[in-house]
Amino acid sequence: MALDPKIAGRLKRAADGLVPAIVQQHDTGEVLMLAWMDDEALHRTLTTGRATYWSRSRGEYWVKGDTSGHVQWVRHAALDCDGDTILLKVDQVGAACHTGDRTCFDADVLEVSENA
Amino acid sequence: MALDPKIAGRLKRAADGLVPAIVQQHDTGEVLMLAWMDDEALHRTLTTGRATYWSRSRGEYWVKGDTSGHVQWVRHAALDCDGDTILLKVDQVGAACHTGDRTCFDADVLEVSENA
Repeated sequence: MALDPKIAGRLKRAADGLVPAIVQQHDTGEVLMLAWMDDEALHRTLTTGRATYWSRSRGEYWVKGDTSGHVQWVRHAALDCDGDTILLKVDQVGAACHTGDRTCFDADVLEVSENA
Repeated sequence: MALDPKIAGRLKRAADGLVPAIVQQHDTGEVLMLAWMDDEALHRTLTTGRATYWSRSRGEYWVKGDTSGHVQWVRHAALDCDGDTILLKVDQVGAACHTGDRTCFDADVLEVSENA
């Protein structure tokens, strides 16, 4: 089985065949991480309810939590208006970040100048 | 003036020189959109407090709201653990999406199978 052709037809992939997926904790709204999906990763995610990505560094599918136990149960999925970004709302078990932080955006805050 | 070299040194850009920026409403936690930044767009964003992107379709800088009035005032910015994704928390004026929807993820919900 492959990704539903009606979804595949709306998906706009980058040159490498991948689409960015924003991953958000469904109840608190925390943005946890950004990962990448191809058609197969999206198909597996939608049909298993387990967030599944394409690892660009390892060149393989990656079922989040299979190694770490930090599973993402998918509660909601959507495409954006252009079909080139995915939003997943998940229930994150434990830390989302491989560093052990709750989210991948906790550690490196950038200073913003005062708004006018 | 260019992007602070200490930030530029941590930034990991895609082959096209761009980094994805996740844009979130600072108080409600809604994920509004995803856009793209190069070093200069990030520099302008951090120093003006106005979200500024690189438009891949138009090939130009794009100060969100300059045409639509739908300005994004930046309240918080962070890099992720790998330095290859930016998270902006903003105060969004009006609709974030060019379709008139509040967010770019409102219109195209994907069905997810029941979790096991």
